[in-house]
Amino acid sequence: MLNIPDSKYPRIVIVGAGFAGLNLAKKICRKDFQVVLLDKNNYHQFQPLFYQVAMAGLEPSSIIFPLRKIFQHKKNVHIRIADVQDIDHQNRRIDTDHGEIYYDKLVIATGASTNYFGNKILEENTYGLKSLNQSLSLRNAILTDLEQALMTQDYDERQGFIDIVIVGGGPTGVELAGALAEMKKYILPKDYGELDRREVDIYLVQSGERLLPGMSEKAGKAAEEFLKKLGVHVLLGKRVSDYKDGFVITKDGDKIRANKVIWAAGVKGNTIPGVPESSCLRNSRIRVDEYNEVLNMPNVYAIGDVACMQSEELPYGHPQVAQVAIQQGSHLAKNLIKNTRKPFKYKDYGSMATIGRNKAVADLKSFKMQGFFAWVLWLFVHLRSLIGFRNKVVVLFNWMWNYITYDQSLRVIIKPEKKSKVS
Amino acid sequence: MLNIPDSKYPRIVIVGAGFAGLNLAKKICRKDFQVVLLDKNNYHQFQPLFYQVAMAGLEPSSIIFPLRKIFQHKKNVHIRIADVQDIDHQNRRIDTDHGEIYYDKLVIATGASTNYFGNKILEENTYGLKSLNQSLSLRNAILTDLEQALMTQDYDERQGFIDIVIVGGGPTGVELAGALAEMKKYILPKDYGELDRREVDIYLVQSGERLLPGMSEKAGKAAEEFLKKLGVHVLLGKRVSDYKDGFVITKDGDKIRANKVIWAAGVKGNTIPGVPESSCLRNSRIRVDEYNEVLNMPNVYAIGDVACMQSEELPYGHPQVAQVAIQQGSHLAKNLIKNTRKPFKYKDYGSMATIGRNKAVADLKSFKMQGFFAWVLWLFVHLRSLIGFRNKVVVLFNWMWNYITYDQSLRVIIKPEKKSKVS
Repeated sequence: MLNIPDSKYPRIVIVGAGFAGLNLAKKICRKDFQVVLLDKNNYHQFQPLFYQVAMAGLEPSSIIFPLRKIFQHKKNVHIRIADVQDIDHQNRRIDTDHGEIYYDKLVIATGASTNYFGNKILEENTYGLKSLNQSLSLRNAILTDLEQALMTQDYDERQGFIDIVIVGGGPTGVELAGALAEMKKYILPKDYGELDRREVDIYLVQSGERLLPGMSEKAGKAAEEFLKKLGVHVLLGKRVSDYKDGFVITKDGDKIRANKVIWAAGVKGNTIPGVPESSCLRNSRIRVDEYNEVLNMPNVYAIGDVACMQSEELPYGHPQVAQVAIQQGSHLAKNLIKNTRKPFKYKDYGSMATIGRNKAVADLKSFKMQGFFAWVLWLFVHLRSLIGFRNKVVVLFNWMWNYITYDQSLRVIIKPEKKSKVS
Repeated sequence: MLNIPDSKYPRIVIVGAGFAGLNLAKKICRKDFQVVLLDKNNYHQFQPLFYQVAMAGLEPSSIIFPLRKIFQHKKNVHIRIADVQDIDHQNRRIDTDHGEIYYDKLVIATGASTNYFGNKILEENTYGLKSLNQSLSLRNAILTDLEQALMTQDYDERQGFIDIVIVGGGPTGVELAGALAEMKKYILPKDYGELDRREVDIYLVQSGERLLPGMSEKAGKAAEEFLKKLGVHVLLGKRVSDYKDGFVITKDGDKIRANKVIWAAGVKGNTIPGVPESSCLRNSRIRVDEYNEVLNMPNVYAIGDVACMQSEELPYGHPQVAQVAIQQGSHLAKNLIKNTRKPFKYKDYGSMATIGRNKAVADLKSFKMQGFFAWVLWLFVHLRSLIGFRNKVVVLFNWMWNYITYDQSLRVIIKPEKKSKVS
């Protein structure tokens, strides 16, 4: 059982503690509500820096924050690690793996995950970068494979261990490719002097004709140049269709040997059981009206990446980025607190992506920039949005340390032991 | 294959990069040797602080250090992640899971692990604290069980989730009990206000009549007092013999309900296949002469916890502590470099254990102390022995932070995802 005490205040159940759900919870917990926050993890994850965890540039604990610590002084907030299994919106009840609970309002803020568009083979053979645990798996795989590469004299086998293919030329793919290229440049010669650095190839495969399709043409071009200068093989207009015998295969029939393929080519909404298919789009995003209320489900809301607010100007809804999630969380909080129905309006502050040291691209409202100052801006914006003073200090310290030394000391392969009793 | 290049220098193969093996490698790599360092992990672990990782007081990366970084500028050092499977000392060859390798000298520095004295039930149902991975498992279990405890109204079931039994009253058991008691006192009311703190019981079970049998009577008494003041149930003269249906059972028939039992009641040597039984003691420690050479195995050495150098004064060999391992590593390095045979002499600087904030016990050569100043000394000594400036800074920062705020933000349950391709 979830074991939530009775309360005289209306009960808001929030599923998911990402940017959207957490922001909503933080706002409404100051008012007369009982807040029940359900998540699979006991922490909030700062997604934009997952790739730095995967590259062993940051520790997990620097970019995640325990939920209980955020709400330590809020007696009206009840955090539970639970999975939702069904919604009965007629009776305002959800079923979870820890029993049922009644709600006054239900908010779905479950985010998005990797979309393989039904391709099981790619799903099984590639790495995602949509959760902290996935990032750590990738880190372990990169480091383990480098160790393995040292222990073979077979050229082809070694290629499999050291080459990496990234699928998807959006911000995640671009940032990851930049970080990998820098690892090759600065770390490999130091840590793996026995390997020939020139044998290491990093491929970035993008189906469209340019990188960063969500940003300006200028930003895409600059990112491509930066990456090429770092030695990344940028393959445009190529679509990865299969993975077989250790080879990535494109639609045109190209073959690249690589044990590690990183899939950053699409996301889908993490809809939950009980939301009827008719309320979802093909990519599992939940259709909401301009108040973020789910179609045909009164008192049920969806916010953030999982929600899709279609309109004439935005036939595919808002971009699935942190800013939209944060703003929708805040906006819904206002409507709930004031018991109003004001439509959501997205304020676009712009977007940015970093490509290794000293280089980034930024499309801001009034101007675009590329290079060093964009990179400084990127650092500042990301540092500012991290939760917790301690995290800010530790991340800043790590960044400065890496900037000065060109070298982190986090390249360790950690795998907690499985005890039969621990699930 | 291990893929070690040929060299004109004598080849020293070291198995294990703990205090003993790492210290030896660091000393001899400056001279004309080819050093092959084999370990299961790609990092050195600082064992004395495992319990703080388990308590979510420190991050793994703060107390471990990547081996490759230590030897970045030593071209004559070859690090491989491999398991030794056999030794053929007639032909100076070892077999590993990555093929065979010939040596001129072989050094076994594989350390020690938890000893269950053959009790399979206890082995399967208790947590050890002899590796980083074990420490993380324990951390995950403690945090997961606290979450579970919130979701039950059954008193007995909840007791299972929140009570903890520690078996063994040596330094590990004492330090862990102190840290757990402080977690109960300072963290529980903040993070788990919905739980009744008074229901949480911490038991420290010791078979002997006093705590810290390896230290002075005074230290043992002081530790007992400190722990009792913190609310720990110290049970002396009790022997845990079984674990059944969620209950710890002592020889006298006492039963304590607890899902988490931590076994800190004994260690055994991690001997490796190929060392004949006649060269080992009953607790799997390898018998060595006063030069650390293994009995009946010329050119094979054992140092640190796995080695047992028996003498008239020391029928059970030296204590299995970091200081002995470090000194044996240095001493063997000297003998190898100078090609001499000087017997090993242990310089005992004393021993210490900490019990939570502000309290520790220390038996030094010339005097004994208990309380605040012993604690400051403990901090200083441990900080000093950590490898890496970055680690020292981060641990110091964490300790200061925890000291001031009484609160860490590391209480997160992290489990890297298993990809089929990742072993």
